[in-house]
Amino acid sequence: MKLTAKGQATRQRIIEGAASYLRGDGAASVTLDDIRAITGTSKGQIFHYFPDGKEELFLAVARFEAGRVLSDQQPHLSALTSWAAWERWRDSVVARYRAQGRNCPLGVLMGQLNTTPGAHEVIGTLLDRWQSELREGVAEMQEAGLVRSTVDADRASAALIAGIQGGVQVLRSTGSVTHLEAALDLVIDYLRG
Amino acid sequence: MKLTAKGQATRQRIIEGAASYLRGDGAASVTLDDIRAITGTSKGQIFHYFPDGKEELFLAVARFEAGRVLSDQQPHLSALTSWAAWERWRDSVVARYRAQGRNCPLGVLMGQLNTTPGAHEVIGTLLDRWQSELREGVAEMQEAGLVRSTVDADRASAALIAGIQGGVQVLRSTGSVTHLEAALDLVIDYLRG
Repeated sequence: MKLTAKGQATRQRIIEGAASYLRGDGAASVTLDDIRAITGTSKGQIFHYFPDGKEELFLAVARFEAGRVLSDQQPHLSALTSWAAWERWRDSVVARYRAQGRNCPLGVLMGQLNTTPGAHEVIGTLLDRWQSELREGVAEMQEAGLVRSTVDADRASAALIAGIQGGVQVLRSTGSVTHLEAALDLVIDYLRG
Repeated sequence: MKLTAKGQATRQRIIEGAASYLRGDGAASVTLDDIRAITGTSKGQIFHYFPDGKEELFLAVARFEAGRVLSDQQPHLSALTSWAAWERWRDSVVARYRAQGRNCPLGVLMGQLNTTPGAHEVIGTLLDRWQSELREGVAEMQEAGLVRSTVDADRASAALIAGIQGGVQVLRSTGSVTHLEAALDLVIDYLRG
């Protein structure tokens, strides 16, 4: 479907309205009617901008949120070239998820899109990009002689991704960033040797 | 409610039947009617054994599964007193979750009990016990002089819990244990110094 610039803007407004609702307290689930009410959109408009309905809209919101996960970590994530940069990145991740607290828009969306291939693709793409930036950061530190060459950059970046995912999961359940911080700090300590 | 020995056995049969169903392929969600059908139980029986209905039954299944998460790691988890023991424990965790694959009974239950305080309590208790066994293991290795005394046992055990949780989450989405293995191996390498 080809949208006009105005159509594109309306579509984006619906996506961002839904995303903003999911970042609020108590949004443990969401329906198409919730999103219509929040964004002041008619059923006809929703199906005009998202012809496949709920799943297409939810996936668009999930993609938008996945993009924010990475952009919220910039400019640090793409320039992990010194220990100071790693610490700034670490702090930005903790601050982001501390502010998010128990409310995880992607988590809520994934809970509702659980079994759809599209949902796996959104999360898979997010984790791949994220891990690839981290792998690049480790490799650059190795080239600069700041991380020993015996460290496996693939494994270290995978361990970071696992630790962040698990830390955020614990945060969603307990409200505490302790596990997220422990995972980040331990891997960075490991890299520092 | 005081149950006879026979009543206890029936109640347990319902719990284990539901758990077994959730371990199967494609059980992305479950209803009370599913569990009645699977376990050949009448509505009256369900409410006799679980007077508060669905939530009480689901929490009982979640508690049963949480107990299995820990018992599946024994005897290794409670005797982390050598590097060989840590490696056996690591292998038992990977084997357990590799066998489980994308099917995570606790994950499915948590998806459906998401917002209930009882669900948070089941997961919180599981993670606390798990982390406490790991912390004890690190402390024992320190007492034996096998792990340097500067390692923070609290932080290392929290990082392990985060890495396992995140690794299992990635496994549920991708079907691969790579992240789980990376997280476990990196923390063990860190402990080995």
